[in-house]
Amino acid sequence: MSNSLFDPLFGADRVAERLDDASWVAALVAVEVALTAAAAEHGVVSDADAEAVAAAASSLRVDPAELGRAAVEGGNPVIPLVRMLRAAAGAAGRAVHPGATSQDIMDTAAMLLVGWAGEIVLDDLRGAADAAARLAAAHRDTPMIARTLGQQAVPTTFGLVAAGWCAGLDRARTALAVELAHLPVQLGGAAGTLAALHPHGPAVAGALAARLGLAEAAPWHTERSRIGALAGTLAVAAAACATPATDVVLLSGTELGEVREAAPGDSSSMPHKRNPIAAITARAAARRAPALAAVLIGGEHEHQRAAGAWHAEWQALIDLLRAAGGAAARLRTSLDGLVVDPERMAANMALTTDDVTTGHAGELCDRLLAARP
Amino acid sequence: MSNSLFDPLFGADRVAERLDDASWVAALVAVEVALTAAAAEHGVVSDADAEAVAAAASSLRVDPAELGRAAVEGGNPVIPLVRMLRAAAGAAGRAVHPGATSQDIMDTAAMLLVGWAGEIVLDDLRGAADAAARLAAAHRDTPMIARTLGQQAVPTTFGLVAAGWCAGLDRARTALAVELAHLPVQLGGAAGTLAALHPHGPAVAGALAARLGLAEAAPWHTERSRIGALAGTLAVAAAACATPATDVVLLSGTELGEVREAAPGDSSSMPHKRNPIAAITARAAARRAPALAAVLIGGEHEHQRAAGAWHAEWQALIDLLRAAGGAAARLRTSLDGLVVDPERMAANMALTTDDVTTGHAGELCDRLLAARP
Amino acid sequence: MSNSLFDPLFGADRVAERLDDASWVAALVAVEVALTAAAAEHGVVSDADAEAVAAAASSLRVDPAELGRAAVEGGNPVIPLVRMLRAAAGAAGRAVHPGATSQDIMDTAAMLLVGWAGEIVLDDLRGAADAAARLAAAHRDTPMIARTLGQQAVPTTFGLVAAGWCAGLDRARTALAVELAHLPVQLGGAAGTLAALHPHGPAVAGALAARLGLAEAAPWHTERSRIGALAGTLAVAAAACATPATDVVLLSGTELGEVREAAPGDSSSMPHKRNPIAAITARAAARRAPALAAVLIGGEHEHQRAAGAWHAEWQALIDLLRAAGGAAARLRTSLDGLVVDPERMAANMALTTDDVTTGHAGELCDRLLAARP
Amino acid sequence: MSNSLFDPLFGADRVAERLDDASWVAALVAVEVALTAAAAEHGVVSDADAEAVAAAASSLRVDPAELGRAAVEGGNPVIPLVRMLRAAAGAAGRAVHPGATSQDIMDTAAMLLVGWAGEIVLDDLRGAADAAARLAAAHRDTPMIARTLGQQAVPTTFGLVAAGWCAGLDRARTALAVELAHLPVQLGGAAGTLAALHPHGPAVAGALAARLGLAEAAPWHTERSRIGALAGTLAVAAAACATPATDVVLLSGTELGEVREAAPGDSSSMPHKRNPIAAITARAAARRAPALAAVLIGGEHEHQRAAGAWHAEWQALIDLLRAAGGAAARLRTSLDGLVVDPERMAANMALTTDDVTTGHAGELCDRLLAARP
Repeated sequence: MSNSLFDPLFGADRVAERLDDASWVAALVAVEVALTAAAAEHGVVSDADAEAVAAAASSLRVDPAELGRAAVEGGNPVIPLVRMLRAAAGAAGRAVHPGATSQDIMDTAAMLLVGWAGEIVLDDLRGAADAAARLAAAHRDTPMIARTLGQQAVPTTFGLVAAGWCAGLDRARTALAVELAHLPVQLGGAAGTLAALHPHGPAVAGALAARLGLAEAAPWHTERSRIGALAGTLAVAAAACATPATDVVLLSGTELGEVREAAPGDSSSMPHKRNPIAAITARAAARRAPALAAVLIGGEHEHQRAAGAWHAEWQALIDLLRAAGGAAARLRTSLDGLVVDPERMAANMALTTDDVTTGHAGELCDRLLAARP
Repeated sequence: MSNSLFDPLFGADRVAERLDDASWVAALVAVEVALTAAAAEHGVVSDADAEAVAAAASSLRVDPAELGRAAVEGGNPVIPLVRMLRAAAGAAGRAVHPGATSQDIMDTAAMLLVGWAGEIVLDDLRGAADAAARLAAAHRDTPMIARTLGQQAVPTTFGLVAAGWCAGLDRARTALAVELAHLPVQLGGAAGTLAALHPHGPAVAGALAARLGLAEAAPWHTERSRIGALAGTLAVAAAACATPATDVVLLSGTELGEVREAAPGDSSSMPHKRNPIAAITARAAARRAPALAAVLIGGEHEHQRAAGAWHAEWQALIDLLRAAGGAAARLRTSLDGLVVDPERMAANMALTTDDVTTGHAGELCDRLLAARP
Repeated sequence: MSNSLFDPLFGADRVAERLDDASWVAALVAVEVALTAAAAEHGVVSDADAEAVAAAASSLRVDPAELGRAAVEGGNPVIPLVRMLRAAAGAAGRAVHPGATSQDIMDTAAMLLVGWAGEIVLDDLRGAADAAARLAAAHRDTPMIARTLGQQAVPTTFGLVAAGWCAGLDRARTALAVELAHLPVQLGGAAGTLAALHPHGPAVAGALAARLGLAEAAPWHTERSRIGALAGTLAVAAAACATPATDVVLLSGTELGEVREAAPGDSSSMPHKRNPIAAITARAAARRAPALAAVLIGGEHEHQRAAGAWHAEWQALIDLLRAAGGAAARLRTSLDGLVVDPERMAANMALTTDDVTTGHAGELCDRLLAARP
Repeated sequence: MSNSLFDPLFGADRVAERLDDASWVAALVAVEVALTAAAAEHGVVSDADAEAVAAAASSLRVDPAELGRAAVEGGNPVIPLVRMLRAAAGAAGRAVHPGATSQDIMDTAAMLLVGWAGEIVLDDLRGAADAAARLAAAHRDTPMIARTLGQQAVPTTFGLVAAGWCAGLDRARTALAVELAHLPVQLGGAAGTLAALHPHGPAVAGALAARLGLAEAAPWHTERSRIGALAGTLAVAAAACATPATDVVLLSGTELGEVREAAPGDSSSMPHKRNPIAAITARAAARRAPALAAVLIGGEHEHQRAAGAWHAEWQALIDLLRAAGGAAARLRTSLDGLVVDPERMAANMALTTDDVTTGHAGELCDRLLAARP
């Protein structure tokens, strides 16, 4: 995966820290501990056992590589992790994994990771949107030529253009925040009936959700519309980054020269070049997002646990978060220090027109900024 | 393509009627007429001209094939349509297309079509969900074996399984209804500044939205996050159909035989076969949806009108509506008359267990049905 | 699908004629007639019956809409078509569809359609490549500035740029021609064992292939790697069109102005604009191709006939051919009359450098043109 | 991401070793050293300098994380690597990176990695195909019921089914081997004209190719049809693994029970279960492949170096190799020890028919096996 080599370049380093092997292990352990505690709340296991499990978990050292190798046999890392936890907890091991199936733990842990990583994505989306908003406010009345189908058209303002970037980023961010605020717990047991926790199943599930800060939900082992919606939202967020990034690349072009990044990159062969690297890599990061979302949306989750479509989600979801988060981070860098050249904008516009009427541009810019969430 | 031959099979015939050439022409004309009327409301054109334009439009006969050929030169059908309308309106032709650019008309017309076709998609999603809910209620306590990773696991009920189908369909339907309730008008003029309508631009845009039943919106020529969100939602809806369809296919298999469609198909070579054709074609219809959504989400709409990414939306959006609508229609047929065989369920379950404890299945089923939107 | 309205704009009109309902019906009938004749060659049916079937088929009038409606029940149009053919053939009806299953007929007919439509795609790819080659030859020594990452870099020649376009188009065309030269017949019968034709199965399959100009092949009902390879090749061909089209769009931009299309489009609001519509619509047409190819490649064709993945191929394959063919046709138009402006190229280059050394550009251009297939 | 945790499960561990950060660094260094040596062959740099560069490179220790951080500024790791190499080589540093641009080194290194990783993919595809062939030979005459559209149809043999798996795997493997045998060198310099090496450009490029075991090629900085073809081929290979894996999952189902994996997985909640984990994870690994291929095929590589589409290839290509390689590795495990149950096949078939005629199944099986490449 070449994480260390490419992650900084594509902006994924910060979000990746919350998606790495150690994060997965931490999330899986956190879910098991919370499940035992939730079961204890409702008398399914004893409080003493629950405390012992929590203590054992807190001192458990799990080597992800070893866990990964052990995961092969049963098809997921929960099975060996439960073995390790039980061994570490001694007699209290009987209180580990009460009433749960592997998918309960994996799905719930995945939602925790989405929440952790999603915070970073939101933060960078907000940072990028704020930068766009600052550009819009500063250039509310800076005329530039609009370009449609690649051709100079009639005047607009750079403020309106940047306000449009901001609107897309804010819209995507708001939609993502809604998804992140409703990440669901998963607890259904072997068949999704909570049978092994009967008659305390829904109560334990509710307690588990509360302990982990997740939303209550009926078991959704194969009802994956939430995952699909989350995936679509992440892809739209990545695309909302790609559009301003594309504009920065084009407006930075030698012949246009209307903007430039604060820290444009140089070249291994051409010292005179100033490449808008942050915008370029934002586009690159965003590019995989729609395809990964399609993988996540399109799974046909058969019967009561899908034999493949479910497993395929783990890497696709991580990659999608990395792609969206990376695009946001790199765009934020691009916009944060973007240098705008109003003289160049004026000169370019003069190629086509000396009419600088910008219609409602200023008013529309104000309206977009005033409507920011 | 091959509409007449394949549309009925893949359930697209009903939704396609609202997406065909004639619908596009009707939508484009409706937008132009409403725009002129909205402009008249604010004194941009005269009431008399607006009435003349409306009259001319109402008697205008547009041959889609001719319009299609004429569209090649300028790159979209609005340019020749405006010419036709102006010619038909005589002196009032000056009041046609006031302050607008082609994209204003195309995007707004596309939103009308999405609304028209979306109604059908919603109706079939509701029909499918209702059928699933009926199955769930009727089989609240019908035990069946849960199957996880293809293997028999422990008991559940068919009611809970069908309630899960219903939940996915309802969730997708609700999300789609939200999108459809906020379809935005597009009016920005050549550069998105509404300059040619100044100082009445926003007022005319608002009047246009009101006349067409669309939501007001600042120009979104290249801020396509709404299109991305709509596309993602349609793909999730298609996927919410594919999952129950897959279950029907698998549960109908000879060895399982737990359900069968009311009108299973026969075979050109094997008269004894009973194929669950509606479910099969629902799956097939759904299969293109995520990929088409990825196309729509992933466009990088550069500058003030994209040179390609915008044009690519028209067919992709139509196809996506056809795919999602087709999947919903075929699933509805599949579930509407689904015959359930509790004896076979019991016999299959007996292969693995004689424990018929179904835990909280009934309660979870009730909860899912009670929460229906 | 809005064929008449949008097909000319996206270049799909010519290829679509070979992919429409009538073409499907013609292909299906042709396969049935050839199958009966092939069976007669090997004594499976009588020559007299075969002649009667051929005669009946030649006067059979099939309404695609009626066939489409009749296809719903059994899940494909072959079942009702066989009924119609048998009815038309009277006593010789017993010789219709000997030993075949619906998938044999559908798959073989699809291969015929791919061959018919593929000719058009190849022709337009060749036309586009030839136009690129002419541009390359004419501008072998026309200096222009290379642009890397959007920035002016160092000199190249327009000849080398156009030769690169040509190379991509030729490579894609050659790969597609290889696929088209090996389109396989499908004949396996109900289970892929040719049992109903025993002991003449392979001989009849060979005769069928010969009659239809297809390649012999063991039954491939669920071995779809050929379809996947074909799909990938079509998508690569579309992409090979998108790259030059993108260059034309960018080089046509007002500030660059180095090329322009022979018949640039005007605008509904800005008479001064000259939009490179052919290139724009080539890009748009190409954009769906990779996603459609992914749908075709990614089907998991289970057991001996897939319940959904197979059916999903029909529309995806047609759409992919339309997308690739449309991209090629529109690019051909774009390049055929492309007007190149060497003065503007020189002026733009002077922004960065007065060094006009173009290294091996001429030689590399020659080498690429000399290597044309 | 999460390499250690998930790679073994999804079969990517072996192929990932050739795609990790260290492999990238090794490949990049190897290309730089070979380029200097190739330049020395033609007198562009001195032999002494070339030897000094090679020596410096062989003792250079590059920390991928440090290189990754340093890559951010210029947009790729070549720029800082060249600095490091130059510093290490002292006076001979002038002979580092002669006439090259970053893309030359990145693309050529990527081709080396594809070659290294491709060997593993090929090996596992062959292993899986060989296992399928052994199953086919062993069960040439084992009757089983064919299932079409999920329903029992008429008899076939397990030998023919397994021979079909083998055919798909062999076809995909052969196509991949062809791609891997023609991986091209990239050397074009800043503008693709080899100007900085003039008049030795093509000669140096040829020498570079020879030293690295790559194919000679005119510069292909934005002519990416080879990358598209490679991507399509890898996705088809993944799909060729997914189809047998799907069959194994379905045939292993409790009610069918016709095959089982040698080491089926157990469950965290149900000790009686025997899950076909290798096949399940093969399907999961394969699932991302078509979408990743679509990303790679669909890049529009503008001008003389794409600002985003190029950069997006690096991770997508790695992921695609991991997905295809993982699918092949896991399928190989699944098939290598697959246990077939002829009695169960017979019993299942008896549900529908007591006719065990298998037509040409044996002969077709022989033919497929005899035709193996």
